[in-house]
Amino acid sequence: MARKSWLPIPHNSHFSLSNLPFGIITTPTSRIPHVAVAIGNYALDLHMFSSSNGHAAGGFNDLAAIKPYLSVFSQPTLNAFAALGRPLHRQVREYLQDVFSEDTPYPDILKLNKGLQAQSLYPLDSIETHMPFHIGDYTDFYAGKNHAYTVGVLFREPNTALQPNYTHLPVAYHGRASSVVVSGTPIRRPWGQIIKDSGSDSDSTPVPVHQPCKRLDFELELGAFICRANDMGEPIPVVQAHDYIFGYVLLNDWSARDVQTWEYVPLGPFTAKNFGTSISAWVILADALEPFKAKGLENEHQVLDYLREADPEKSALDLNLEVDLTTKKGNTYTICRSNGRNLLWSYPQMIAHHTVTGCPMAVGDLLGSGTISGTREGTQGCLLEQTQGGRVPITLGHGSEKEERMYLQDGDTVRLRAWAGGRSGVEKEGELVGFGDCVGTVMPALQR
Amino acid sequence: MARKSWLPIPHNSHFSLSNLPFGIITTPTSRIPHVAVAIGNYALDLHMFSSSNGHAAGGFNDLAAIKPYLSVFSQPTLNAFAALGRPLHRQVREYLQDVFSEDTPYPDILKLNKGLQAQSLYPLDSIETHMPFHIGDYTDFYAGKNHAYTVGVLFREPNTALQPNYTHLPVAYHGRASSVVVSGTPIRRPWGQIIKDSGSDSDSTPVPVHQPCKRLDFELELGAFICRANDMGEPIPVVQAHDYIFGYVLLNDWSARDVQTWEYVPLGPFTAKNFGTSISAWVILADALEPFKAKGLENEHQVLDYLREADPEKSALDLNLEVDLTTKKGNTYTICRSNGRNLLWSYPQMIAHHTVTGCPMAVGDLLGSGTISGTREGTQGCLLEQTQGGRVPITLGHGSEKEERMYLQDGDTVRLRAWAGGRSGVEKEGELVGFGDCVGTVMPALQR
Repeated sequence: MARKSWLPIPHNSHFSLSNLPFGIITTPTSRIPHVAVAIGNYALDLHMFSSSNGHAAGGFNDLAAIKPYLSVFSQPTLNAFAALGRPLHRQVREYLQDVFSEDTPYPDILKLNKGLQAQSLYPLDSIETHMPFHIGDYTDFYAGKNHAYTVGVLFREPNTALQPNYTHLPVAYHGRASSVVVSGTPIRRPWGQIIKDSGSDSDSTPVPVHQPCKRLDFELELGAFICRANDMGEPIPVVQAHDYIFGYVLLNDWSARDVQTWEYVPLGPFTAKNFGTSISAWVILADALEPFKAKGLENEHQVLDYLREADPEKSALDLNLEVDLTTKKGNTYTICRSNGRNLLWSYPQMIAHHTVTGCPMAVGDLLGSGTISGTREGTQGCLLEQTQGGRVPITLGHGSEKEERMYLQDGDTVRLRAWAGGRSGVEKEGELVGFGDCVGTVMPALQR
Repeated sequence: MARKSWLPIPHNSHFSLSNLPFGIITTPTSRIPHVAVAIGNYALDLHMFSSSNGHAAGGFNDLAAIKPYLSVFSQPTLNAFAALGRPLHRQVREYLQDVFSEDTPYPDILKLNKGLQAQSLYPLDSIETHMPFHIGDYTDFYAGKNHAYTVGVLFREPNTALQPNYTHLPVAYHGRASSVVVSGTPIRRPWGQIIKDSGSDSDSTPVPVHQPCKRLDFELELGAFICRANDMGEPIPVVQAHDYIFGYVLLNDWSARDVQTWEYVPLGPFTAKNFGTSISAWVILADALEPFKAKGLENEHQVLDYLREADPEKSALDLNLEVDLTTKKGNTYTICRSNGRNLLWSYPQMIAHHTVTGCPMAVGDLLGSGTISGTREGTQGCLLEQTQGGRVPITLGHGSEKEERMYLQDGDTVRLRAWAGGRSGVEKEGELVGFGDCVGTVMPALQR
């Protein structure tokens, strides 16, 4: 499957020819956001690619199916392209794979066309990426069973760590769409309402104070973007739900743990999660991840009919997940290594449950997976788990560079990374299908 | 204050000259949605009003301030008009009040202009209303303390009915924007995951089933639309928050109680609330309700600095609230009479808390108040309260027409009504400031 490209692609690039993720960019020559794909160290500006070259349809001259819809590539979001549906996404991706293949059947389109290369191919370090979608609604699931269990044990007994509903339905809450930002956006430490001395377990009357969050955390998640709407009142059957998935991003659900502890009863997290959610700039098409489908976590219960999947062996994605923490000193530590299979519920199950009531989904809706943690030390996708609820700090580095973290400090940079198709250091060219980075730096709280 | 209009306005009309609520309509002559105001039994199409009449600015010829922005009235939502800010909303409303006044200073604009009247004034029963806003995010608060207390007592002891955080912060959850619909839209009874025999209090292992909701309820709420954005990371101070409120609607937060009971731990309501939320078609400008500001419920706690209001005596709205239930037989019963003062938290407090973390608000965001219940029988804003948790049915009618309700039945129509400025039966012309109806009929669940 790993085809070679005439464009040099570094062997460890997340953006191999097998990937071709979609995003929104501005370039040195155009400050108007347009659709692009990433390949190796380059972005192909599909607005330029589709509108010049002397052909009527530009670089898409040899793909008849897309010709009526070329304006989608000149939009400032992926919504219009996504709305064309998975069969067209597939054709566009396969066509572009052909265009970039060493043995391309269309050498005149780009390989031998230095003019169009100059107009449409930009080094990644020369462009800016932007929010890939206008998000309608954002829902965050809680499908990372290991995370839910570990967090449950912190606050309850092991045998009641998971709520009774957990294995019967994909638990979720509606999130805040307006605070979803693209990778690279700084995250300001929020103020919030917090219980004074929240470390104590005394049962005296809690006294809240208004102060900057002291327990700022990240959460390692996947996100999926929706590419098809259902009518209100019409549930999406689980076996059709994959047709509604445009593709995937990495997602950091920044969390103010001290705010969350106090506010979340009885209606769930609110301000603890509404100050910023980061997503990767490049969206991997669902098709590009098809080869990496694998079994997720086993559910001990037989699930209800409307959640029963066609192929439970392919419910999750075999993705390598990593979290790097770069401290203010400039040192970088990989503090988490997990895998996308650590989910109890699949995206089709999430969609089927979300719409079981007839809730309408729209193109551009974003669904977070929940924190994807393993069970062992070093596999946990947030600091709440890693520090056992803020009780045992993690150690970074050695000797004079040694630092500790209970929660995030101002100036800390959190970088999520994920890829399929190889192990770090042993990849072959054209093999990796990755997201690039989902990164954010913690800015100090506002002064009052 | 009650000015008389040259246009006949019925004495009991919600749409007096003191009101002039804004909405989105299509008319017999235009199927393209435009901005309108309601007055008496008419809607004034502001697209037609502002674009014809021989003047450069049409009917707005004598209001210089709005002339650069006339295109806002030709939009299919109120978002662009709302974004102009409260000072302009005020000028437009006052100008239109002048235009419609018996002693109008601008008689040539409309009063004596039969041509423009024919082009822009439509009987309400000849037009269709549409969603007034494109909603970005929808948040539902829980500020109805009597509701929270009564529901808390149903599930816990009276002294723990309210959670410890309740009197310190306005509890809320992020809702589902895509399922907010305009008054008149039918609501299909949702399917959901429900515990078999959910009436029993046994502590045996719960067994969920997939079935149509059997405990479908309404919730009587207000909603507020946002007309101004804050930058991400910048909280909105409570004393400035009223500048962010465009206006108010009535809101019915339809709820599947049996779904909610099972799913809501630990992240709050999800599918129990995402199948439909109805709002009234006409949005009353914040200015029109200024004269009806009144004290809300007393908070026993001193609230934190960021929630402290300039004038706590004017934290709520003195609105008469009613709920009518029309059964399939066609009989109508008023099953609830409440008042807008039954809220513990004001809208400025809700906005200040929502953004305390720096959460960005956008023009068109919708904030629900939570269920506005009184404490006595007949004042409770949902069936969950009225039937004591589904234990004691309410009785409708007498003799051969007698019916009972524990929860809503297919074919039931729920109509919320609210108005300020008079008591039913004793209004004077020009006095009432009301929302019209917020109505929805329950359709049977889909067959499987």
